[in-house]
Amino acid sequence: METTECSIGIDLGGTKTRLGVVDNSGNVLEQITIPTNVKGGVDLIFSDILSAIEKLQKSANSKPIKAIGVAVAGQVEEKSGIIKFAPNLHWRNIPFGQRLHEALQLPVIVANDVRAATYGEFCFGAGRGLQDIICLFIGTGIGGGIVSKGSLLTGHNNSAGEVGHMVLNIGGLPCTCGNKGCWETLAGGWAISKNTQAAVAKDPQAGKQILQKCDGKLEQINPHHLFEAVKDGNLYAKSLMNSIEEALIAGATNLVNIFNPEALILGGGIIEGAPWLVPAIERGVRSQALQSATEKLSVLLAKHLKDAAVIGIAAMAKNL
Amino acid sequence: METTECSIGIDLGGTKTRLGVVDNSGNVLEQITIPTNVKGGVDLIFSDILSAIEKLQKSANSKPIKAIGVAVAGQVEEKSGIIKFAPNLHWRNIPFGQRLHEALQLPVIVANDVRAATYGEFCFGAGRGLQDIICLFIGTGIGGGIVSKGSLLTGHNNSAGEVGHMVLNIGGLPCTCGNKGCWETLAGGWAISKNTQAAVAKDPQAGKQILQKCDGKLEQINPHHLFEAVKDGNLYAKSLMNSIEEALIAGATNLVNIFNPEALILGGGIIEGAPWLVPAIERGVRSQALQSATEKLSVLLAKHLKDAAVIGIAAMAKNL
Repeated sequence: METTECSIGIDLGGTKTRLGVVDNSGNVLEQITIPTNVKGGVDLIFSDILSAIEKLQKSANSKPIKAIGVAVAGQVEEKSGIIKFAPNLHWRNIPFGQRLHEALQLPVIVANDVRAATYGEFCFGAGRGLQDIICLFIGTGIGGGIVSKGSLLTGHNNSAGEVGHMVLNIGGLPCTCGNKGCWETLAGGWAISKNTQAAVAKDPQAGKQILQKCDGKLEQINPHHLFEAVKDGNLYAKSLMNSIEEALIAGATNLVNIFNPEALILGGGIIEGAPWLVPAIERGVRSQALQSATEKLSVLLAKHLKDAAVIGIAAMAKNL
Repeated sequence: METTECSIGIDLGGTKTRLGVVDNSGNVLEQITIPTNVKGGVDLIFSDILSAIEKLQKSANSKPIKAIGVAVAGQVEEKSGIIKFAPNLHWRNIPFGQRLHEALQLPVIVANDVRAATYGEFCFGAGRGLQDIICLFIGTGIGGGIVSKGSLLTGHNNSAGEVGHMVLNIGGLPCTCGNKGCWETLAGGWAISKNTQAAVAKDPQAGKQILQKCDGKLEQINPHHLFEAVKDGNLYAKSLMNSIEEALIAGATNLVNIFNPEALILGGGIIEGAPWLVPAIERGVRSQALQSATEKLSVLLAKHLKDAAVIGIAAMAKNL
């Protein structure tokens, strides 16, 4: 009987870090979630992760760990394992991969979290068996991963897939990236919060039901308060939601026209909180994109809603 | 001494067809341009092309012709050589590749003209030696070809690269594709004509100098009349040009953010008529796209302004 070779996937987030032992078939056999102590800095985060890895190695002791993968939001240099810029962690140029490799004497890969999650969906999720997919993760921001002819698009400087900063509205609202009218300013979680707060502030009477969802605290309105009001059938909330849907459809239509994928796979906190967006985006894309780009297209919900990055980075690590 | 193996590249356009004998190094050794008799239908166009090929074969008689390539605007099925839809020719489902193959007993490839031109720039033009490029051809419409890791992006249904129908202005002007606010509605040649005519009709006093460029015939204003007025320093023409530049920058920025190419290569009639657009697009993209996407980017003028599709489809044919 063949021994299952496992790897450990680490999804290093700004508030928590998920670690999992993943087998050849993409199953998460053991799993730990620890808080990410951003204020503690690199050393503390490093030692917390090391302890968690050791725990996982012990509990998975019958299965040899072949490699380690770290997925992180931001820019990384995959070859050297250097985290060039991770805004949530306030890190710049941290040789995290090398440190882990030196401590554990195992191959280590570091990759962007959206790309890792895309790889997870491609190998073991909604994109399994397909060759041309786009994964869209709509959360606080909007990230995208693209697989073309079975290969993950990286770009020349390893920054391909920055779909959230696609301009959909020339001269529109300012974005965190410095540009104006980006997709994120219309449909990213941060913008949904901001835009909903502004709309409710402008018309408190119309926005009353949304405001009630967060005990009247305007500045605390987040996307989920809007979604709750939509679920209650509130018309003002629905009208705000319509603009968000329109923007999601426009951005998805652009990507489908540009890439002509076999599947458009949707995930992320906004999709999880408002699952009706999946059929709405599908309807919109089918009516707005070119026929040649949609006639063989599937629009799917991501399979591994929480674990895609852990599974994907573990699979990437195994290829080392 | 090795014999040079040549192929014939054919750029089958809506008004004229260019044919060239192309050698291994991408040099066009012989060349013929014939009118495309669209009203004559498939049979007449076919026999005209066949005669032109025979002429080229004769004049290139010392060089063996290995294969034939046909580039056409529209959707094609590369494997079968069927032209699925060529709007300029009013053709649907024409097995043009097979007919040529049967008549000439040579391997024949049929491909989309923008993709062929991209391949020409990739193999023998501004993208030579690079692995990740985007070619943008801004003419009557806006077409794009993408090379990633040295391989031409085709998409699942062979329709990747439809960048002209990227929405840049949600709910904007109606496009020929049925959607609204596409890139083409702001910066494609057809839209520049239409939008300039509308602007001049709305404010004939301000548009006087543009109108003079086409002898006062409003409905005949085309992009080149606008460009002439810009060159004369006319302020109204410059203000219209600014909006076009803004749209070109926004679309180019989106593609650079999404693909992170090594080079963005610009060609097509609009770029040739207004060459100042190349540095303007470069400046705009550098200031609006993400730093990681531009720090290793070159913005270049296409090398083979007229011949890229002939050279590219000939090179594709040689790979058969």
